[in-house]
Amino acid sequence: MKGFIHIYTGNGKGKTTAAFGLALRAAGAGKKVYIAQFVKGKMYSEIKAVRKFLPQITIEQFGRGCFIVKKPAAKDIHAARTGLTKLREVVSRGEYDMIILDEVFIATNYKLITVEEVLEVLKTKPVATEMILTGRYAPQEITDEADLVTEMKEIKHYYSRGVKARKGIEY
Amino acid sequence: MKGFIHIYTGNGKGKTTAAFGLALRAAGAGKKVYIAQFVKGKMYSEIKAVRKFLPQITIEQFGRGCFIVKKPAAKDIHAARTGLTKLREVVSRGEYDMIILDEVFIATNYKLITVEEVLEVLKTKPVATEMILTGRYAPQEITDEADLVTEMKEIKHYYSRGVKARKGIEY
Repeated sequence: MKGFIHIYTGNGKGKTTAAFGLALRAAGAGKKVYIAQFVKGKMYSEIKAVRKFLPQITIEQFGRGCFIVKKPAAKDIHAARTGLTKLREVVSRGEYDMIILDEVFIATNYKLITVEEVLEVLKTKPVATEMILTGRYAPQEITDEADLVTEMKEIKHYYSRGVKARKGIEY
Repeated sequence: MKGFIHIYTGNGKGKTTAAFGLALRAAGAGKKVYIAQFVKGKMYSEIKAVRKFLPQITIEQFGRGCFIVKKPAAKDIHAARTGLTKLREVVSRGEYDMIILDEVFIATNYKLITVEEVLEVLKTKPVATEMILTGRYAPQEITDEADLVTEMKEIKHYYSRGVKARKGIEY
């Protein structure tokens, strides 16, 4: 079965959850899944859930938190680059049916890794592997290479009413 | 903690997976989740995954399959109405932190249940319960009541190249 490249981007809620929903579905079909989470560094509930209930899904984080307040530091760049190195290795080994690069476009947007580096990883994708990329600001060069692109468009969000992110819902 | 009403709609891939990703995240935070899946009747991989790996999430199907080819029959209406009855009971009992109505807008679009009936269920939502509604064609009357609306917009899809739905990826 040929594997495709998916992109979930846009300013709306549902990108990371869609990727984790795909991982769950794949696990239900007996597929092997690897998730690299860029930028984010906290122990999110979805990671807890995977580690506790879906140990057959491998998940690793390559970040120290989001850049809403502060600019990325050398340590953030180092974390993302470690992720890129690991990703190259994981993709080239070809042992996973699905590889998820969560928040990879935040990493490219903040220039922790380059768009060209991500494109090169995609080029080495084994034919049967499904690759899922998420994050705001998907660059045109990568959407050009993708087989499926969904824009999660915010029509309405409770954040605009001052609601804060909640455990178990947003993280 | 106040619970909100989410809608994931639009013609793009990622609505059901976003809902299941939310269920997974909620489970990771120790929340109780109930999923009612309308219209769909097949044993999808995500349902297999939930039943096998996340038995603390309750999931029930109230459908016999999609209406791409055939029109809904009396049995389809009966299945959806059984779901509505069950949903009223589940919402009023107030024992779940998150209640997901997957593909409910396909059910309203095909008039298996009415928009007004769904609105009445939403009105009885306990304050702390998070409710997630998915499906194409979310009607304006329900998006008006929602706290969060994301439109999953198809920018590009491999279906348009003739690729068929694949086990572990689409179902």
